[in-house]
Amino acid sequence: MDLELQLAVERLHAQYVHALDSDQLEDWPGFFTENGRYRIATAENEQRGLPLPVLSAEGRGMMRDRIQSLRHANIYEPQRYRHLVSGVLVEKTSAREARSTANFVVIRIMQDGDTIVFATGRYVDRIALPDLKYDERVVICDSRRFDTLLAIPL
Amino acid sequence: MDLELQLAVERLHAQYVHALDSDQLEDWPGFFTENGRYRIATAENEQRGLPLPVLSAEGRGMMRDRIQSLRHANIYEPQRYRHLVSGVLVEKTSAREARSTANFVVIRIMQDGDTIVFATGRYVDRIALPDLKYDERVVICDSRRFDTLLAIPL
Amino acid sequence: MDLELQLAVERLHAQYVHALDSDQLEDWPGFFTENGRYRIATAENEQRGLPLPVLSAEGRGMMRDRIQSLRHANIYEPQRYRHLVSGVLVEKTSAREARSTANFVVIRIMQDGDTIVFATGRYVDRIALPDLKYDERVVICDSRRFDTLLAIPL
Repeated sequence: MDLELQLAVERLHAQYVHALDSDQLEDWPGFFTENGRYRIATAENEQRGLPLPVLSAEGRGMMRDRIQSLRHANIYEPQRYRHLVSGVLVEKTSAREARSTANFVVIRIMQDGDTIVFATGRYVDRIALPDLKYDERVVICDSRRFDTLLAIPL
Repeated sequence: MDLELQLAVERLHAQYVHALDSDQLEDWPGFFTENGRYRIATAENEQRGLPLPVLSAEGRGMMRDRIQSLRHANIYEPQRYRHLVSGVLVEKTSAREARSTANFVVIRIMQDGDTIVFATGRYVDRIALPDLKYDERVVICDSRRFDTLLAIPL
Repeated sequence: MDLELQLAVERLHAQYVHALDSDQLEDWPGFFTENGRYRIATAENEQRGLPLPVLSAEGRGMMRDRIQSLRHANIYEPQRYRHLVSGVLVEKTSAREARSTANFVVIRIMQDGDTIVFATGRYVDRIALPDLKYDERVVICDSRRFDTLLAIPL
């Protein structure tokens, strides 16, 4: 077991969620390689092999565009999100790549204090080494019901 | 502090919850030693010293039986579970055994998307070394209210 | 990356939450340095730079007093709490100090089994080295709505 790699990947996941939870969405593309891919899928579609992502982005450019539209669309964003990541499994598949699977839960806190479990699922990642950037992050959500206004990265 | 043991135990806990959350229940007995013991108890009964487990199994054979009945009883299992494990304390008590305490939360996601905090509590484990198998896993739940249909391992 | 420090801080956070969740509140001041500071704030006030903590204590003496009043006020405390800590970032700022940021979620379980997400937010800590005691722990809660009876440390 590679202790250093394990903790480095856990740290990457931690920095990622702190950026999102602190509403530093402009930092989000920087967690990916230049051509990195991101998609949100449902567990149901993944199991059936349906390549129908709820949301997807290829490359930092597309991610930046997405965040920009998001900023223009939501002048006022009253809710907060809080991510928990747990059960991080890491495997080094080559000198240039590690794979990771981890459970996540996202809590949403509305301005009036109303708090719900917003999303749960698994992060399934391919991570470029030694840069420690996501070459692919697939967010597999347990629920197939999505808020139609779902726009923020998970 | 034994860094390697700490991360090895965290990895064991992670593999355990990923098996359950991926519905690979047939893998569950393999996380235990041949005569390993598993029980679910309530915090209230544990405090009072009442040896009344909600559910218990001794040895892999009994665990396999349990999973088999579960598979036969539930032809169709529409809900999903997502485990979070946190605050993993590990102590090496001998060359052959480590003890671990950790907090857990299990979220249940119904097919219609309805999501609840299903169970919370502590895992209190005796772990056989160097095999890293549970010799005893006690799941101490905070709530004393149990779904009468509770059947899946936690 | 300092693996040993990372795991030592995670262990400190773990021991802290296990003490609270096991209702060993008398152990709480011992996690701080003699003059350690603790406060609960809202994310909103922190962002606006308003120094209005929901609750604060300076030094172990004040913490002990707080726990004592709490014990006298609540003869019977039927609810339980379960903390999850995740995304622990650690940075060594000097030979005598580390800083840490981590996400937390606290679940409250009432005696009738009713379970809610009680509080979410971030722990922002200054930790004295090599003692591994909190010199300052700021609990920044996402919600600005607080139970008026909020009395227990988070």
